[in-house]
Amino acid sequence: MSNTLELLNWRYATKKMRPDAVVPTEKLDIILESIRLSASSSGLQPYQVLVVTDDALKAQIRKVAWDQSQVTDCSHLLVFAAWDNYTPERINMMFDLVNEQRGFKNEGWEAYRQKLLAYYPQRPAEQNFEHAARQAYIGLGSALIAAAEQEVDSTPMEGFEPEHVDRILGLGELGLKSVILLPLGYREAGADWLVDLKKVRRDSADFLINR
Amino acid sequence: MSNTLELLNWRYATKKMRPDAVVPTEKLDIILESIRLSASSSGLQPYQVLVVTDDALKAQIRKVAWDQSQVTDCSHLLVFAAWDNYTPERINMMFDLVNEQRGFKNEGWEAYRQKLLAYYPQRPAEQNFEHAARQAYIGLGSALIAAAEQEVDSTPMEGFEPEHVDRILGLGELGLKSVILLPLGYREAGADWLVDLKKVRRDSADFLINR
Repeated sequence: MSNTLELLNWRYATKKMRPDAVVPTEKLDIILESIRLSASSSGLQPYQVLVVTDDALKAQIRKVAWDQSQVTDCSHLLVFAAWDNYTPERINMMFDLVNEQRGFKNEGWEAYRQKLLAYYPQRPAEQNFEHAARQAYIGLGSALIAAAEQEVDSTPMEGFEPEHVDRILGLGELGLKSVILLPLGYREAGADWLVDLKKVRRDSADFLINR
Repeated sequence: MSNTLELLNWRYATKKMRPDAVVPTEKLDIILESIRLSASSSGLQPYQVLVVTDDALKAQIRKVAWDQSQVTDCSHLLVFAAWDNYTPERINMMFDLVNEQRGFKNEGWEAYRQKLLAYYPQRPAEQNFEHAARQAYIGLGSALIAAAEQEVDSTPMEGFEPEHVDRILGLGELGLKSVILLPLGYREAGADWLVDLKKVRRDSADFLINR
């Protein structure tokens, strides 16, 4: 028995959301917390999540997101925005936070900090951004399950022009780049072409390889 | 109340696993199924999961994975391997599967197939691989929660030399490239330096941005 599998089966990429249905704060907070608690490489959490509720901003984003209705119909539009680069400041910020929260410095941990400081900032910004973007997708995986648990619908969306979303939300000056959108809301089942269609995945025999 | 948050709080990147503890098949199957059911861009599922149990293979992989003990101590070593490129064959395979499973062809869906066929295969292989790798991380996010639900420990690992893992597992001829390892097993609490340390995450006030 697995509740997680039930949640994964329940969710689907909602194509039509009810424009007036609002996700309650306590449910939203659980979904956001599931992202914040997610694993990330070296614990760096190299991304931030924007929670967009302003109607004018949503309308602007919809224009650069293939005019998809969920962007404006949703209750809260989450924008996962990855660090545009790994800098010494950002790496030190997280290692300092770990020391502060745990209340001690650890030799092995400090050696690991030096290893990352010697490695990441020397790599091309684009490579670091791609690495950071992957971590955001772990958080996305958590959010999809947490939303389903709260019976909140969601739609992971890569169909948008990131440079325009970055401009609209002022992400450049924050050193962030948008990587994926996740509208949260409630399905309008009667107007959603996908809601009743079978979820299709490759067979385990094709998806898994035993060695 | 959220069970998902409890699971995320329970899990941690296990540093020492019991070498002889075996994850039961029914638990393993649930974890693998959570990956298979995970969302992916356009539903392409552009990755596969290798389930490595052979001791000799694990030992070879450990040598190119910073000698981390979980690689050989774990019960099952999952290797997430992303498509090295998006080809017309791969795109058509998934669109055909969807038609077959749903039992009908849909005009909008066929137009979307043509859109992807005109777009993805023309992009550089590296860009397509990076995109595929991100999708694998959604599955990783699911697996971490499903494993916790089954009280199975796991350790997401990027510390390995992908080209060597690809060679050891023969991934090149399958058109795959390894992106992340996930040993599954059971913590050896007395020998694990991380097990009792506080999980550290940035405050919501730093992680979230309201707009």
